[in-house]
Amino acid sequence: MAQKHKVVVTRQLISEAQTLLEAVPDLDIVQWPSEGPAERSWLLEHAKGASGILLMLSDKCDEELVQTAGESLKVIASFSVGTDHVDREALKTRGIRLGYTPTCLTDAVADLSVMLILMAQRRGGEAIAKVVKGEWPKMPWSPLLMTGPQIRGSTVGFLGFGRIGQATLKRLLPFGIDRVLYSTSKPGKPVNEDHFGLLKEGTIPIEVAKDWRHLAKESDIVIVGCALSPSTKHLVNAEFFSEMKKLAVLVNIARGPVVDTDALVAALDKGEIFGAGLDVIENEPNIAADHPILNQPRCVLVPHIGSATIETREQMATESVKNLLAGLNGEAMVNEVRL
Amino acid sequence: MAQKHKVVVTRQLISEAQTLLEAVPDLDIVQWPSEGPAERSWLLEHAKGASGILLMLSDKCDEELVQTAGESLKVIASFSVGTDHVDREALKTRGIRLGYTPTCLTDAVADLSVMLILMAQRRGGEAIAKVVKGEWPKMPWSPLLMTGPQIRGSTVGFLGFGRIGQATLKRLLPFGIDRVLYSTSKPGKPVNEDHFGLLKEGTIPIEVAKDWRHLAKESDIVIVGCALSPSTKHLVNAEFFSEMKKLAVLVNIARGPVVDTDALVAALDKGEIFGAGLDVIENEPNIAADHPILNQPRCVLVPHIGSATIETREQMATESVKNLLAGLNGEAMVNEVRL
Repeated sequence: MAQKHKVVVTRQLISEAQTLLEAVPDLDIVQWPSEGPAERSWLLEHAKGASGILLMLSDKCDEELVQTAGESLKVIASFSVGTDHVDREALKTRGIRLGYTPTCLTDAVADLSVMLILMAQRRGGEAIAKVVKGEWPKMPWSPLLMTGPQIRGSTVGFLGFGRIGQATLKRLLPFGIDRVLYSTSKPGKPVNEDHFGLLKEGTIPIEVAKDWRHLAKESDIVIVGCALSPSTKHLVNAEFFSEMKKLAVLVNIARGPVVDTDALVAALDKGEIFGAGLDVIENEPNIAADHPILNQPRCVLVPHIGSATIETREQMATESVKNLLAGLNGEAMVNEVRL
Repeated sequence: MAQKHKVVVTRQLISEAQTLLEAVPDLDIVQWPSEGPAERSWLLEHAKGASGILLMLSDKCDEELVQTAGESLKVIASFSVGTDHVDREALKTRGIRLGYTPTCLTDAVADLSVMLILMAQRRGGEAIAKVVKGEWPKMPWSPLLMTGPQIRGSTVGFLGFGRIGQATLKRLLPFGIDRVLYSTSKPGKPVNEDHFGLLKEGTIPIEVAKDWRHLAKESDIVIVGCALSPSTKHLVNAEFFSEMKKLAVLVNIARGPVVDTDALVAALDKGEIFGAGLDVIENEPNIAADHPILNQPRCVLVPHIGSATIETREQMATESVKNLLAGLNGEAMVNEVRL
């Protein structure tokens, strides 16, 4: 009879994933019992002798954890898109495999990106706030009351034009946009992958921007969708805003530090741009109620809910379990990090 | 030399429309001088001897006004989609023509309808409120934190499937919806007009619902886009909600009284539906800060901003001026009400 594998799971999983895990024979499952994140001391205590650990962004996977688990450890399955919380070297030197779940959130993030564009243009945050404060009865109608720019006829600029950017474009086409400008990590270079055949179809012009200035100057909607790196940190700064159109909006669905928050607040104060929609921001989640961005009626900020759909999170959970089992059995993972 | 026509305009118009009006020779323009709505006494005082009156939803066009203007009056040009503020009989008996501006807002309303669907599914109002209250730092990540249903795979139910409904559908297709159910004013009957060729294309099934119950039962997204009439008042009521799916959302971009607000509040309280997005509501704009709908975190309410884009309002203003001039000159209007 095969020896029982011990696996440590740092969360209660969503039903389908939990069922998949529990159906595996000869598995000794040690699972964090309550709703919130697992305590570090609990994780270290139970890691001893584990063959696999399924963990979250909130669980640090470092030298200490790997050493504590000991020689039995074969796989870390992370329920996450990024793997910043994992010490890759600690795994690599011991031949431990690392699985993650980067691919299933394209739809959810692209959907949210359209929501944020519309909210920035149509003053969604401001509109809700006025109603909630009881101001609606005192808003006399006038032709330009609560108006914003319309999508139809827009030039849309994508800073970073990967799968999520292209999925967003696909959704924007029937709104009647006119033209796309995009930039990649290599300035002036076209993208390698045409994920949905949009570049080939060419129903509207889709052009590589000469540089960020070109994109900032000509776009009515700027969508930040690039990875964070030393060269993209504060790519959208005071100079960028000063080149933008007064009726343009900025949307960030990527990583907070790509946009200089102080510069955004100043640009909104000066009326250099019309509005903004942010799913991410520098120093998140530490945004206190008195943060200056929250005083900007034309800026909408949501708490990093890009991938927050039931379907996506269920798929991420199921894929983490599959990665965990593949690691135990020496099979191919759904998505594995090459260490 | 032709006699000068006197025209009364109850608002300051947007620049292009104002320019168009002022360019007309031999016109005696009397225009309300300030930003807000015109006073009734001002309107009655200046109406005397007018050939045309360009007015807004907020200006009542009744027997008194028409009588005061006298026999010179040839045209009322209303800057509005509806004409509830106009006494049609008073105009008809005197052979006065009535212009209005119903067609140019399709894009603006369809755009807003997509925004409200996304906000209802992705908990947009709740998400913003949490951040504004400074709760983000205290929201520990968990797999189902702030999740909502995803559009992909949805059945979308349209109560009323005219131009705006079809324009909304056009926008929803690339989000990956699976199927459409719709109802018209004649139960079980298909629509007459295929405004954008979507029914002919048939990329997904688009079916007439057997009745409202069929539509309520099978839709993941219900969009209210029908006219208000005795038969549609409170069409969406407690019974309707009780048939809906627990993860479904309701969006109203038509007229408030089609949805029974008390029943909506109860349905949200009981968890009969997932969320709602409203551009209109019964008794608007008299929604005080203590209105029960504003206590529903899963309901987003914006202050009737469906047509509130700069482009649409400019086009409405320009069309009203064109209708006014057409009425003076006995020419065809852009849109005229058959009295």
